[in-house]
Amino acid sequence: MRQATTLLSIDTPGQGLFDITRRVTSWVDQHDMAEGLLTLFCRHTSASLLIQENASPEVQVDLLAYFARIAPEDARAYTHDDEGADDMPAHLRTALTGVNLAIPVIDHRLALGTWQSLYLFEHRRRRHRRSIALHLIGA
Amino acid sequence: MRQATTLLSIDTPGQGLFDITRRVTSWVDQHDMAEGLLTLFCRHTSASLLIQENASPEVQVDLLAYFARIAPEDARAYTHDDEGADDMPAHLRTALTGVNLAIPVIDHRLALGTWQSLYLFEHRRRRHRRSIALHLIGA
Amino acid sequence: MRQATTLLSIDTPGQGLFDITRRVTSWVDQHDMAEGLLTLFCRHTSASLLIQENASPEVQVDLLAYFARIAPEDARAYTHDDEGADDMPAHLRTALTGVNLAIPVIDHRLALGTWQSLYLFEHRRRRHRRSIALHLIGA
Repeated sequence: MRQATTLLSIDTPGQGLFDITRRVTSWVDQHDMAEGLLTLFCRHTSASLLIQENASPEVQVDLLAYFARIAPEDARAYTHDDEGADDMPAHLRTALTGVNLAIPVIDHRLALGTWQSLYLFEHRRRRHRRSIALHLIGA
Repeated sequence: MRQATTLLSIDTPGQGLFDITRRVTSWVDQHDMAEGLLTLFCRHTSASLLIQENASPEVQVDLLAYFARIAPEDARAYTHDDEGADDMPAHLRTALTGVNLAIPVIDHRLALGTWQSLYLFEHRRRRHRRSIALHLIGA
Repeated sequence: MRQATTLLSIDTPGQGLFDITRRVTSWVDQHDMAEGLLTLFCRHTSASLLIQENASPEVQVDLLAYFARIAPEDARAYTHDDEGADDMPAHLRTALTGVNLAIPVIDHRLALGTWQSLYLFEHRRRRHRRSIALHLIGA
């Protein structure tokens, strides 16, 4: 049994879903494990990690519109507004979607379903540099 | 230290919460670990994994009604509707509840609380065959 | 490679976010691992685990107000009300925020971001004793 860790750095240009599947699987592949567990952890409170459909771009449009509706950028709705109108909704969307994922490795591959991709879900409007901690354990 | 993985296949007849606790604990028990970690990963974007109360059936009725209300099957609300009115809300409900769970094994048993059971949360109306990847590590 | 588990017991005086970062990191530090994975699992269906900002107290005020709004204590909204008006919304808020977290250990430290703290999110109004299972694996 062995393990590996790394920090992935991702520059986001503003709100949206950013597909990190290739960068993550490429790191996992380097360690060539037949069986194991990958954990991803987003080290922020205004960006989250999400597994979603990769086939239809419309799904992403609807996802963004949905979270904009249920956790709106409405300064009057929050007491915490000194970091901008997009800050408090960013914390709420992060609370709703979560900052970590765990995916088994089976037969040398992440056990993702056919239509699943890994996304960094950026909730802030301005550019940010995001850090994601990865941990892999297995054999 | 050792590990094990498997794919659990579950047929769902339509929307609802399906208790998978017995199937999961039975697989965990086979590996007879005193201490460890179980990870469950649902390989879909329109079904999720949820830990919820197993005592009152009313809790499940209310849970289903709640998610039907906050992510409604309203075709006009979404641009992605070519897979049916229940598809986009299924993605949203999956985003809100998540596709993975991790539960420690302590003293030869999953550390579930007295009232906790593991549910596959099916969000689509038609029959589906769902695949859940399990990973167990420990000693 | 080695592992450790424990049960953390936390008394909550009522609804709110309770910072458990120090208790958790202190337990992790005892095991002095350079690299590993920490998993937290809340053994209840009416309290959850959340990573949120630790800098501004207003963020917590807004978080509590937000969940009170999207999963309100409105007895008429639920069929399950025999355990009190705060019980069913507690299950819903738990479903939305989740009962588990996993955080890599890198360079002898939990890979938490600067502004991230670990909170037990209590959803019930009365005093409760909550149990959180911790699992640590690494070297």
